[in-house]
Amino acid sequence: MLYDETLAAIVPPDETAMEAAWKRWDSIAKPLRSLGKLEEMVVRLAGIYRTDRVSLGKKALIPMCADNGVVAEGVTQTGQEVTAIVAENFLHEKSSVAIMCRETGTDIFPVDVGMVTDTAIETHKVAYGTKNLRVEPAMTREEAIATIETGIRKVQELKAAGYGIIATGEMGIGNTTTSSAIAAVLLPAEVETVTGKGAGLTSAGLQTKIDVIKEAIAKHQPDPKDPLDVLAKVGGFDIAGLVGVYLGCAANHLPAVVDGFISGVAALVAVRLNPLVQGYLIPSHVSKEPAGHMIMDALRISPLLTCDMCLGEGTGAVAVLPVIELGLSVYTCMSTFDDIEIDAYQPLN
Amino acid sequence: MLYDETLAAIVPPDETAMEAAWKRWDSIAKPLRSLGKLEEMVVRLAGIYRTDRVSLGKKALIPMCADNGVVAEGVTQTGQEVTAIVAENFLHEKSSVAIMCRETGTDIFPVDVGMVTDTAIETHKVAYGTKNLRVEPAMTREEAIATIETGIRKVQELKAAGYGIIATGEMGIGNTTTSSAIAAVLLPAEVETVTGKGAGLTSAGLQTKIDVIKEAIAKHQPDPKDPLDVLAKVGGFDIAGLVGVYLGCAANHLPAVVDGFISGVAALVAVRLNPLVQGYLIPSHVSKEPAGHMIMDALRISPLLTCDMCLGEGTGAVAVLPVIELGLSVYTCMSTFDDIEIDAYQPLN
Repeated sequence: MLYDETLAAIVPPDETAMEAAWKRWDSIAKPLRSLGKLEEMVVRLAGIYRTDRVSLGKKALIPMCADNGVVAEGVTQTGQEVTAIVAENFLHEKSSVAIMCRETGTDIFPVDVGMVTDTAIETHKVAYGTKNLRVEPAMTREEAIATIETGIRKVQELKAAGYGIIATGEMGIGNTTTSSAIAAVLLPAEVETVTGKGAGLTSAGLQTKIDVIKEAIAKHQPDPKDPLDVLAKVGGFDIAGLVGVYLGCAANHLPAVVDGFISGVAALVAVRLNPLVQGYLIPSHVSKEPAGHMIMDALRISPLLTCDMCLGEGTGAVAVLPVIELGLSVYTCMSTFDDIEIDAYQPLN
Repeated sequence: MLYDETLAAIVPPDETAMEAAWKRWDSIAKPLRSLGKLEEMVVRLAGIYRTDRVSLGKKALIPMCADNGVVAEGVTQTGQEVTAIVAENFLHEKSSVAIMCRETGTDIFPVDVGMVTDTAIETHKVAYGTKNLRVEPAMTREEAIATIETGIRKVQELKAAGYGIIATGEMGIGNTTTSSAIAAVLLPAEVETVTGKGAGLTSAGLQTKIDVIKEAIAKHQPDPKDPLDVLAKVGGFDIAGLVGVYLGCAANHLPAVVDGFISGVAALVAVRLNPLVQGYLIPSHVSKEPAGHMIMDALRISPLLTCDMCLGEGTGAVAVLPVIELGLSVYTCMSTFDDIEIDAYQPLN
């Protein structure tokens, strides 16, 4: 089965290539390690690509789009119709991230993995939205695996088409509720600590959201040692699709750029399924959602952007791409100390 | 005198344009304020340009290049010859920031405001390097003003040539010593708190640097209420040139992008000369130097990048430009709620 094969195919990034990349950085005519995380990112890419001759190739964003049955509980400000509107707008440069993609030369591949509405975007859905997780598990284990496999297949397809880096995004009204539920179980943390107002809830709405998550966890008893159980019982199809993207990237030696809270929660599920996935994650920003930092810490990645963004769609993941490319340009094009005939800086003592 | 005229010409950013820009943001089809600092930056630009129809125009980087007499005290790892080598490399895409400029479409205008070596770069120097501030004041008050005026004139020239945003940078071996000295007096703060290892000092070198700064401050007694006195006695020509860039930008309604520690210290001098300069500053990153955050806090600006960079040259200021441009693209190109026929998100309560 693709899911099992993919989990089994993941190997650690190539240490030799990473060492070679550090060596190249340290020969470049500038103070040692003075480009900070830009240097770390290039080294990480070297490990992922298994060569110190790092080149990104074409850039893609995969926004996974799905609806969540839990919106029936009043945990969101807007209705499910917004999921479909924004998802279709991905195709017409009418969503925020689609504009950012155009500006950064990133191609966008939205996938419907469970919207309640049929639209013009590519569709691979096992259901029209998840069940209401307050009442019953959001999806079955089989549905979770099938949706993960959709994510894996999309990565395989993009890899074959020459894409070299995959940014992750999502659209799904109600998905901060599912993300907070997963975060509460997997971190673990108190539901109150990891639940925020999402895209504009009132304080009363926030309390409802917290109560619904607590009730769902109490009722379904998701097993924190079984990430698939957690994903199926209190997650969403968009998150499941992203889990597949992370697993697919790791198995296919592609860097996966983590966006904010929801995308970070999906990465956490993937890392819990196989800890080696961590080496294939590229951080971008940290969401304003209360658990944003906690998820990044759990993933052991540190964001390059602190722009207080919380839009979703993959906006943070796309916004970091030009910054990473700048680091890569210096790595590739910059003279070494030998070239410009000055003595190398010495390591700190 | 240009210096006095410029200080007197600075007016606050245009509140009406800023309100109009917020109104535009709030009409755009996405959760309210969900692009965080990207929204704030566009609003800030609207205030500076005095219109909500924000467009950056051409982008420039001005790296001010100068030498510091204090290097005689052993406060740096490399010698003054490196200032000239890197400064000339700005012209040939052989320095880190020059590569970043090429990639971001930013034109680079290095200015020699006091290097000990003559090179091919544009030169306006009042002296070949400052005096050794441990022994005597780094420069006279007249030299400080003359160098500030060089910065002002460079901005006027770039404004006339159609540049719409100025990133700041510097090259000058020894300039973390002068920056720490100014920071200690102006913040104020303990010298130990604001002094770091710069581009690779040893622990013994750091202690020398601290001692030299303390001795200079004790000997010259720079007056924290007189920023020009502080700049002249314990500063450097590169910092003075950047003070001029900030004053010139503010007087000419241009945004000035602050880089890291040294550039931030220059911005602090400018803000102390005229507090209205603050409205014309655009943050970029925060330096790894120990006082990096303190300077940004004193300037009341919050960085968009947290990449642990400490290279100087203006690398942080240039690296933030594509991120700001992405925010501006969404502001300019994105549909409003009316356009896509969904109800607006409501403000949080």
